Amino acid sequence: MPKTVMILAHPKIEESIGNKIISEFTNKYDNVEVRHLDKLYPNFKIDVKTEQEALLNAKNIVFQYPLYWYSTPAILKEWIDQVFQYGFAFGQESALNDKKTFISLTIGSAPDYYNDDVMEKILFPIKGLTEYCNLTYGGEVVSFNINNYTPEAAEKAKQVSVEHAKKLLGLINS
Amino acid sequence: MPKTVMILAHPKIEESIGNKIISEFTNKYDNVEVRHLDKLYPNFKIDVKTEQEALLNAKNIVFQYPLYWYSTPAILKEWIDQVFQYGFAFGQESALNDKKTFISLTIGSAPDYYNDDVMEKILFPIKGLTEYCNLTYGGEVVSFNINNYTPEAAEKAKQVSVEHAKKLLGLINS
Repeated sequence: MPKTVMILAHPKIEESIGNKIISEFTNKYDNVEVRHLDKLYPNFKIDVKTEQEALLNAKNIVFQYPLYWYSTPAILKEWIDQVFQYGFAFGQESALNDKKTFISLTIGSAPDYYNDDVMEKILFPIKGLTEYCNLTYGGEVVSFNINNYTPEAAEKAKQVSVEHAKKLLGLINS
Repeated sequence: MPKTVMILAHPKIEESIGNKIISEFTNKYDNVEVRHLDKLYPNFKIDVKTEQEALLNAKNIVFQYPLYWYSTPAILKEWIDQVFQYGFAFGQESALNDKKTFISLTIGSAPDYYNDDVMEKILFPIKGLTEYCNLTYGGEVVSFNINNYTPEAAEKAKQVSVEHAKKLLGLINS
């Protein structure tokens, strides 16, 4: 089966519900490699060559993160800025044209605010990156109410996160 | 005159045309404080208290940055995530309600791709932050073709950047 690399960004993974469950669930599969950026690069000094090699070895690239202020956590943005360089990801030669990208996003709050227009804006930078570099966008899985504000909310979030992980694997393998 | 704090994010300011010119131009004014995040926090360890105090001392907050992959450089995102905390920027009490935000953005490429819809998506996270925290959005100044791909392009970019700085000051003081 084609290999999948999950680029996981979550500064407090031990306190996380969604990103912890989803990444652990998908990491059980032999053909999935999870790269937890916060653990690998606590000082934001991305090892560009290693990260580029991880992409070259994979067919599918999953961006796994919680929504922070309508965007990605900063470590994921730094990873994108450092890894998607001219000459590697775009320009006369691109090494990534046969890859597919996926967004796997958890949102702490309820879906009320997040209509199609808002979601399009939120997904835009990674979809734009994908398009600019001539990769194929494989779609997104987005889950809401992923929080531990109450014990009941946390319990519900755990169930939703397992469903999210299954849905993501289905999307990748479809 | 009310004080302005410019939050400047540019990892390579010495190679920069636009952000260097705009920040130096505005920094000449007594009531403007420029905080260059990359210089202050090379390891991304934001001094949250100091940054929050800088905001409290100002009336206007300018986000000054070059567009990196349809979004801010990572250091500015980390600053936002760390500084705009619950209890300070939003929640039962917010210390920032009387502040105004501005976006001052340089884009390396030509304006062709950047129609209103795309610009709305690009400005969305900071405008959303502003709205969520009940600050007032004061508007944006956006300049294109800010690059040094050729000596002629660099010369033109310098001129545009000076005009950009003047326009920004006009907007802040309007």
